[in-house]
Amino acid sequence: MTFADKLDRAWSVSGGMLCVGLDPVLERMPEACARDPRPVLAFNRMVIDAVGDLVCAFKPQFAHHAALGAERDLAETIAYAHAKAPHAVVILDAKRGDIGTTADMYAREAFERYEADAVTVNPFMGDDTVNPFLAWSDRGVLVLCRTSNPDARRIQGIEVEGEPLFVALARRAETVWNAAGNCMLVVGATDLDDLARVRAAAPSLSLLNPGVGAQGGSASDVVRYGARADGRGLVVSASRSVIEAGGPDAVRAAAERLHAELRLPEPVA
Amino acid sequence: MTFADKLDRAWSVSGGMLCVGLDPVLERMPEACARDPRPVLAFNRMVIDAVGDLVCAFKPQFAHHAALGAERDLAETIAYAHAKAPHAVVILDAKRGDIGTTADMYAREAFERYEADAVTVNPFMGDDTVNPFLAWSDRGVLVLCRTSNPDARRIQGIEVEGEPLFVALARRAETVWNAAGNCMLVVGATDLDDLARVRAAAPSLSLLNPGVGAQGGSASDVVRYGARADGRGLVVSASRSVIEAGGPDAVRAAAERLHAELRLPEPVA
Repeated sequence: MTFADKLDRAWSVSGGMLCVGLDPVLERMPEACARDPRPVLAFNRMVIDAVGDLVCAFKPQFAHHAALGAERDLAETIAYAHAKAPHAVVILDAKRGDIGTTADMYAREAFERYEADAVTVNPFMGDDTVNPFLAWSDRGVLVLCRTSNPDARRIQGIEVEGEPLFVALARRAETVWNAAGNCMLVVGATDLDDLARVRAAAPSLSLLNPGVGAQGGSASDVVRYGARADGRGLVVSASRSVIEAGGPDAVRAAAERLHAELRLPEPVA
Repeated sequence: MTFADKLDRAWSVSGGMLCVGLDPVLERMPEACARDPRPVLAFNRMVIDAVGDLVCAFKPQFAHHAALGAERDLAETIAYAHAKAPHAVVILDAKRGDIGTTADMYAREAFERYEADAVTVNPFMGDDTVNPFLAWSDRGVLVLCRTSNPDARRIQGIEVEGEPLFVALARRAETVWNAAGNCMLVVGATDLDDLARVRAAAPSLSLLNPGVGAQGGSASDVVRYGARADGRGLVVSASRSVIEAGGPDAVRAAAERLHAELRLPEPVA
């Protein structure tokens, strides 16, 4: 199964384009999880159980585990997501960016050690940093393009031959990096005009859109500005607004509201 | 002690500007290390014992540990370096790049969990990604500027108002990011003209220069093109050409040759 097939199945089975980020913070999790001998794993499992059928993807965030020395929890979280929501794509959000054998090591870490379906990658070092990940042709490589933070445009918005760098990156992804169908772009949900420019430059690519919820982006707007012509092509990610909503019922309710905004168009009979 | 003071002491005590990278590869280490129950730690300790007095810095590479699940070895390697070569600065080469609380988590990982003196950071997401690290004012933040790989200039070399991006980044580091004296730049040893341009734009900053040895850069040329006016200001890093030279004697001999090229100028009496 190619990465594109897996993503397509994830949209179909979940009926929408919602991704939930797994960014555990000890100080902000429910008592029942925080008291568990393995709080990070308990919290992630609670979220996966609550929303597994509603999401096309889970996005565990590397630093939130690494800062706590919770590598084993991260590995078991990903295995749990594969078992409980086998349709869902697991994206390790680690924003790796290195070259040569070091990039190979990062790919082995993400795809073999953690068994993630996909990983986020930072293109600042050029094609040398993207290619070693793309060589894993059945895994997704999500290249940072136009991120959701306030100062994103300082570098990503530099004009290159009359267009911003992030548009040039989108075109390169569409025409070069996606040769094996396993390249996506990370485009924040916080600037809809820039999202539309990426979509125009990369009509066939799938996009990961962080920034919905706590960062202020609207899920239905992301669909309006960012969906592919066939109504698919997005993985819209919310973290704090869902996972910190409270206990399992509150988490599910928050995810259901977003799922409704991100529902796939009805298939034409 | 500020980071700048620590670095200055490291140059003085070691008498030079040599940094040795710790990039353990199981298939390429001496038998005696590979047979150890903890081969990664055994290898790193062998290198630290062999060259500790010759280096101003050690640069453990994150992926080479993470791909093997060797986080404990990484932590114990850094503790061993602090104990055996207390003058040497330990730079965690992890090329982190994220924002907000996630960047805070990466800083906690590098500076608290691993007790590194410094970490490499990728500026693609803008100041939002650099500032959370710079806030740790006694730790070094090494921002990627002009890396040593063949395709580095694809993004880093884009012209911004008549000069390449990496020159603009160097000026920003000199004038903004280094307010607390804890910012350095990563500038490859493989392009001497670009190194000289960074030095001109950032006359006071210290630079980490990877790419000596296996990647083809010459240590003495790096000093000629990159040193500050006072003859200091560089941390010139070699990995494979030193650590894969053979057993402890061969490793030391390789480091001694580089140390001779990177010796500090004699103080004027």
